[in-house]
Amino acid sequence: MKIYGRNAVEEAIKSGTTIDRLVVQKELKDAAANRIIKEAKDRGVKIFFRDKIALDRECDNGARHQGFIAEITDFEYSELDDILAFADEKGEPPFIVILDGVEDPHNLGSVIRVAECAGVHGVVIPRHRSVSVNDTVVKVSSGATAHLKVAKVTNVNDAIVDLKKKGVWVYAADMDGDDLYKTNLKGSVAFVIGGEGKGVKRLTRELCDGVVSIPMFGKVNSLNASVAAGVVIYEKVRQDR
Amino acid sequence: MKIYGRNAVEEAIKSGTTIDRLVVQKELKDAAANRIIKEAKDRGVKIFFRDKIALDRECDNGARHQGFIAEITDFEYSELDDILAFADEKGEPPFIVILDGVEDPHNLGSVIRVAECAGVHGVVIPRHRSVSVNDTVVKVSSGATAHLKVAKVTNVNDAIVDLKKKGVWVYAADMDGDDLYKTNLKGSVAFVIGGEGKGVKRLTRELCDGVVSIPMFGKVNSLNASVAAGVVIYEKVRQDR
Repeated sequence: MKIYGRNAVEEAIKSGTTIDRLVVQKELKDAAANRIIKEAKDRGVKIFFRDKIALDRECDNGARHQGFIAEITDFEYSELDDILAFADEKGEPPFIVILDGVEDPHNLGSVIRVAECAGVHGVVIPRHRSVSVNDTVVKVSSGATAHLKVAKVTNVNDAIVDLKKKGVWVYAADMDGDDLYKTNLKGSVAFVIGGEGKGVKRLTRELCDGVVSIPMFGKVNSLNASVAAGVVIYEKVRQDR
Repeated sequence: MKIYGRNAVEEAIKSGTTIDRLVVQKELKDAAANRIIKEAKDRGVKIFFRDKIALDRECDNGARHQGFIAEITDFEYSELDDILAFADEKGEPPFIVILDGVEDPHNLGSVIRVAECAGVHGVVIPRHRSVSVNDTVVKVSSGATAHLKVAKVTNVNDAIVDLKKKGVWVYAADMDGDDLYKTNLKGSVAFVIGGEGKGVKRLTRELCDGVVSIPMFGKVNSLNASVAAGVVIYEKVRQDR
């Protein structure tokens, strides 16, 4: 898998991801570029200096490389239990985000990014009908994929039942639920975020301990999945402090 | 300008945007498609039924049309004063979002969407070094561009000075500021959100009444511009209630 862009490449180097090959635009001389190159050298990464045209050619999908392309081994998924064990290790009540059918890599990347920033222990995605952690997701996540556990599960509903048994309160973030700001979100919590334009599936919603809604005052009345995730995640952060 | 997709097209019809031409995929028979077609007919929109291939061909930029493409007259920008007048009309203290150099249409579209949902009175973008309200922005905003005032200003800093004179508290949302959750955001407020990876410019930051920061607990420590906008906008919504 290839990752593009300065932030994503630097995060991959720092986090110890195995980089098979790093391609750097040879004209670059700025301090930030030199720092990344030094970090890569210090970790024994093979670096190839090429001109801009060669890097442009390597961007299959029109990604913006900013002078840096790294080829890394594919993303390593975690299990749901790994996420719970990680929370336990940190001595914190589990804080999990479950994505129910998010198909847009920009949304998955943004959710992983905000989850990592907010101290979420892991993100759960379904094995089917969901985008995987691909090049675009890594880039959009700004390298957060290197620091956050992502678990692929066969069935989101089974995962919810499992989490509830383990004492985690599972809330669907969806329309027509309880006011987000009037709901106690302290302690062990998982949020279920629905896919673009479809929301959380009916059966999944019914399985949850509750449904929380972000108050809406406009005409569109639905948020982008990653923005909705950001708002509910940070409301829990606020309540926990 | 063309807009693509069911939500965006339906919002444009409902909001009374002038639609020069609506192209619909002729095989569609589902209830939602019939509803949109009826709404368009009721408003006297010229409709052309074409096969899927013809619609695919009209998507210059690989956008997903979902069977609906509308050609509309270009986006009409507002002035900063129009936004203030609109808040005044509603009898509410002005609530404004200023984007300082957001260049990604996905981010602008998402910010307009969350701003519209949260009851923000308008979004301000700079005339230069910013993406404009184009096809992608309209699509990503899920039609919110039809309901929210967007003002283009020559100089963001002048706009900030102007707003301060009119009693609006202007906060930059950026790193190393005051804790967002410990800042009083009630009343007339404008948030300045920085561009991707660059944050708010130093001079702009210094002009603001304050800097608010979203607490960070991870390694990446920076959010996507639209997610950051969503978090700060909704914290003000929470405090106002």
